[in-house]
Amino acid sequence: MYGDELNALLADRTVNTPTGRIVRMLSEHGAQSATQIAKLTGLAKSTVSTALSELRKSGMVVEAVAENGREAGVGRPSTRLTLNPEAGTCVGILIGLNHIQVIVADVSHAVLADKTAYVTADYTPAEGVQIARRLVNEAYLEHGLSSESLIGVGIAAAGPVDPRSGRMLRASGIPTWAGIEIPKLFEPVFRRPIFVDNESNCSALAEMMWGDAVGREDFVLFTLDIGVGGAIVSGGRLVRGVAGAGAEFGHIGIDPNGPLCRCGNRGCLELYASFETPLVHASRRFGRSMTVDEVIRLALAGDSGCRRLIEDTADVAGRGLGIIGSTINPPLVLISGVLARAGELMLKPLRASFDRHTLVKRDDVPAESRTEIRISRFLENGPCLGAVGLVLRHQGRLL
Amino acid sequence: MYGDELNALLADRTVNTPTGRIVRMLSEHGAQSATQIAKLTGLAKSTVSTALSELRKSGMVVEAVAENGREAGVGRPSTRLTLNPEAGTCVGILIGLNHIQVIVADVSHAVLADKTAYVTADYTPAEGVQIARRLVNEAYLEHGLSSESLIGVGIAAAGPVDPRSGRMLRASGIPTWAGIEIPKLFEPVFRRPIFVDNESNCSALAEMMWGDAVGREDFVLFTLDIGVGGAIVSGGRLVRGVAGAGAEFGHIGIDPNGPLCRCGNRGCLELYASFETPLVHASRRFGRSMTVDEVIRLALAGDSGCRRLIEDTADVAGRGLGIIGSTINPPLVLISGVLARAGELMLKPLRASFDRHTLVKRDDVPAESRTEIRISRFLENGPCLGAVGLVLRHQGRLL
Repeated sequence: MYGDELNALLADRTVNTPTGRIVRMLSEHGAQSATQIAKLTGLAKSTVSTALSELRKSGMVVEAVAENGREAGVGRPSTRLTLNPEAGTCVGILIGLNHIQVIVADVSHAVLADKTAYVTADYTPAEGVQIARRLVNEAYLEHGLSSESLIGVGIAAAGPVDPRSGRMLRASGIPTWAGIEIPKLFEPVFRRPIFVDNESNCSALAEMMWGDAVGREDFVLFTLDIGVGGAIVSGGRLVRGVAGAGAEFGHIGIDPNGPLCRCGNRGCLELYASFETPLVHASRRFGRSMTVDEVIRLALAGDSGCRRLIEDTADVAGRGLGIIGSTINPPLVLISGVLARAGELMLKPLRASFDRHTLVKRDDVPAESRTEIRISRFLENGPCLGAVGLVLRHQGRLL
Repeated sequence: MYGDELNALLADRTVNTPTGRIVRMLSEHGAQSATQIAKLTGLAKSTVSTALSELRKSGMVVEAVAENGREAGVGRPSTRLTLNPEAGTCVGILIGLNHIQVIVADVSHAVLADKTAYVTADYTPAEGVQIARRLVNEAYLEHGLSSESLIGVGIAAAGPVDPRSGRMLRASGIPTWAGIEIPKLFEPVFRRPIFVDNESNCSALAEMMWGDAVGREDFVLFTLDIGVGGAIVSGGRLVRGVAGAGAEFGHIGIDPNGPLCRCGNRGCLELYASFETPLVHASRRFGRSMTVDEVIRLALAGDSGCRRLIEDTADVAGRGLGIIGSTINPPLVLISGVLARAGELMLKPLRASFDRHTLVKRDDVPAESRTEIRISRFLENGPCLGAVGLVLRHQGRLL
């Protein structure tokens, strides 16, 4: 019942009324107090107060339900307001190398469903979109949601995406999806606005909206996994790059005479800082196929070979991060990807190597001028959660 | 006579009246038509019209004088308006490794004076500020300007500067100036607001305000000189870095086992892409001390050794630029520094090497997704002109 009005306010950026601005801000930031709403919209408190009465009367905005008693602190808690969860739902889809994940959330930022299907490595775009459609249908059915409530679909793609067309680039990514214009593929199936970005940019968005970068205007996400990648946020805005290849950290060339990379260059950082080769060594050491999680578990339990594999990977990753440091000099680096699960075991050598290879040395500058390096919040769901964020934030300055 | 009113409007960002917004916009952008003023301030045309009558009546805003007949095109030229040149002057000072340059401009963006003094390499900060003061006094005297008209001083420093304090970092830069807080040094002498940034960021600002990046929101400046450096502009904003070390491209590590760099790291790009070593080779070849300009002149005249020195430098510089490409993927790279004077002789191998080493290959993407690489506008005066820009733009979103 609120869907049409919500869609009008979200989709039409020219609606610069106080109610329009408040609705778009709540879509982007989730539940906020009236004071925060005034601050974040730049509207006068009296204007916010009038517009909120109107929005509450129409049912578009409601009081947020206390989560885990967070609202029930000492003293009178300030009421937090949110978009009415019934006003709309959004879907995030991760198109991964060997799995497709779907998260359904409502416009109050509550996650309602999370489903994954595993696929063979060379699945076609047509197969992918059908699997995604099926997972979304199942989720809506299981949770009694109306498909009419869907306001938009965000898609996180494993690989660089052209920021204008949503086309997947040939360089890296899923080979069978190269050149595919993702919005053109998904629009006929979902008949809603489609928003696309690569999975690292989506992860950064998840950290900005719900994670460890809330309120941060400048940071780098550095992903250490079977692939190496990341995202750059500068002035609150993702640095997408003219061809969608911003923050392709895995393809920083560190040795022009090194081995050939899947991207067609030689000696890319990913060839040295991905955990693919260490897994081969670990599997040889233990005489069976090993997973990254097993290696991390054994390393934490004290196995010196497994520790060494993690330390050496962190060491070369820190060299790459040092290059990023001399280029961007960010205040904050969030480490994501499966290797981040090793925690301090990985962070310690990574930080040391970063400091050794970057221009500004930690001990040369005051604390507020140092680059802080820590593990990101979302090690599992970042990309898919960020795809939901693409929808909630599509009208914000970030996109 | 307009100075006090102008200072009040420029300095107080909270003055959000139409006149305040128009004055700050004209200070930042220079002469504009009424239509452009409405567009750039976001004010309604009728509001602009009323505010402009007021500003013209008070004499704060005047009609721009046609430059080189540009206004006298076909049809009725639209009148361009500018801040009254008599309302204020600003000074830009370049603190270089072996020279100090001063440019004086008025608030209509017209350059009134340009003076340089050469200094010995290890001049002290106290000497530097006195030389700068003398150059400024001479310029004001020669051009009959009142020192009362000075609204602020911008300083371009050869080396990274802490964005909060204006302190020069220890890493790279002028050794005798390391750790100096530049505003504290200059304020007692000029008794005006002091704005500081490193010379590359100032050059980027000059390109944005008067050069080849007017209207561009995203670009990289890449400086190839005796030092190697640059600037990153993202979303219209300089990427300064948490310690002021953003875009220190010369200190991207390309060989962890390479020779020691002046910054304390090994194998920095600057050791390979600066023109210092090629000059030694050229001097040996010709049996006398050679300058970069002589090498370029001989190369353009067909000397194969000089051509080779430039090509090899461009080749390794392109490898470094390829890393920047995989990190930022900018739409535009402007090449500055003395080596840029070699033009196509340097650009051709640089572009080829960039394409070879960066992730996105030119032929793989449509024209609008390519990184355009060309020579910047200001090969001589960029840093000092940008220092003037720091004053004119200090209240803008860039800073």
